[in-house]
Amino acid sequence: MTTSPTARRQLVRVHNFGVSLDGFATGHGQALDTPFGHARFRLVDWFFDTAMGRELQGRGPGGSRGIDNALTESGFRGIGAEIMGRNKFGPQRGPWPDESWQGWWGEEPPFHTPVYVLTHHPRPSLKMAGGTVFHFRDASPADVLAEAKQAADGLDVRIGGGPTVVREFLAADLVDHLHIVVVPIVLGRGVWLWDGLEGLEQRFEVETIASPKGVVHLTYTRRTS
Amino acid sequence: MTTSPTARRQLVRVHNFGVSLDGFATGHGQALDTPFGHARFRLVDWFFDTAMGRELQGRGPGGSRGIDNALTESGFRGIGAEIMGRNKFGPQRGPWPDESWQGWWGEEPPFHTPVYVLTHHPRPSLKMAGGTVFHFRDASPADVLAEAKQAADGLDVRIGGGPTVVREFLAADLVDHLHIVVVPIVLGRGVWLWDGLEGLEQRFEVETIASPKGVVHLTYTRRTS
Repeated sequence: MTTSPTARRQLVRVHNFGVSLDGFATGHGQALDTPFGHARFRLVDWFFDTAMGRELQGRGPGGSRGIDNALTESGFRGIGAEIMGRNKFGPQRGPWPDESWQGWWGEEPPFHTPVYVLTHHPRPSLKMAGGTVFHFRDASPADVLAEAKQAADGLDVRIGGGPTVVREFLAADLVDHLHIVVVPIVLGRGVWLWDGLEGLEQRFEVETIASPKGVVHLTYTRRTS
Repeated sequence: MTTSPTARRQLVRVHNFGVSLDGFATGHGQALDTPFGHARFRLVDWFFDTAMGRELQGRGPGGSRGIDNALTESGFRGIGAEIMGRNKFGPQRGPWPDESWQGWWGEEPPFHTPVYVLTHHPRPSLKMAGGTVFHFRDASPADVLAEAKQAADGLDVRIGGGPTVVREFLAADLVDHLHIVVVPIVLGRGVWLWDGLEGLEQRFEVETIASPKGVVHLTYTRRTS
């Protein structure tokens, strides 16, 4: 049975989004060999250690199958389109030097859906193996979301990051479900997630759970009135 | 059996220290009727709802006796002296208009030990009922700590806050045990705890636990080499 496009409300979801105790969701100094800057992989190590994280990286079987993995998997169910920022797509800034960069994820990226990359420098769409198609858009959050919802064919839309894009969608009150993973380190520098989001929690039901790995999952689910 | 002053190493401890998801440990705009500024009591509600929190406030029996209460109680065991900032002691700024202000806590404050108040405006010590004596010192963290350790008679010294004082003691690497309580709200403004503390976690063993009340306890215990 497939889901009819009109059978349910499409949700806008953020999942598995790591943030340091001091609120930085990526480090300072992103470059080709440091996609998260000086944070290195400390905000995502918990994710890479799960069974699904290992699978996505092609590292074979193994990995944890507890709460971290369950929440990881939840972030991939029922997603029909993705929106991400250009800094998540690649380390370049400004006009593209050429069109050779195809993202961090190799020939077959783990999205398998249309992916809308927000950038002031649009370029032709990029069709990858496994169903991922990167589209490049210079558009407002609301406008790109409208396009992504159409493309998602009744499924949900995931806001994939980075922090600037997640913050913009939260500030515009476009997010229905937010899953934050607090990693108990003090990064000191990087891209701060929380600017302009005072009172965010008032729109959501909040749950907290600490995992045995030492990270803390917080889920914010939009209140229904 | 009493503890001999030389029987064990005296620890410097921070306990029950609430901080918002975005890292503010008190709100903006402290005043006589708003000791935590616009944060109101949102960073300490979890504490006031515990059995010990109720007891400290003279609100009689009742209150939770689970994880929040156990951690609250732990913060009061074995403390022989306290250090706090002037903004925790009162809402005034600059020279004292007179010496009538005796703290927020009434005739019998819940400290029952010497309490060193850091201020650029020293005034005579203040002896309260129940064993609390407020001393006012214009001193460095290390110097006031040396005095507090002497006065603690072999017991531990608690750094009571506010955030500016906790941050200074953390930056000077003077804290052995740090118990942070993350309240999953976005305050947006106030006094930020984390400035200048990059890499803090490297000196500590870290544990995390979420309480059913929805707050998250993080304990940082100094690594022993």
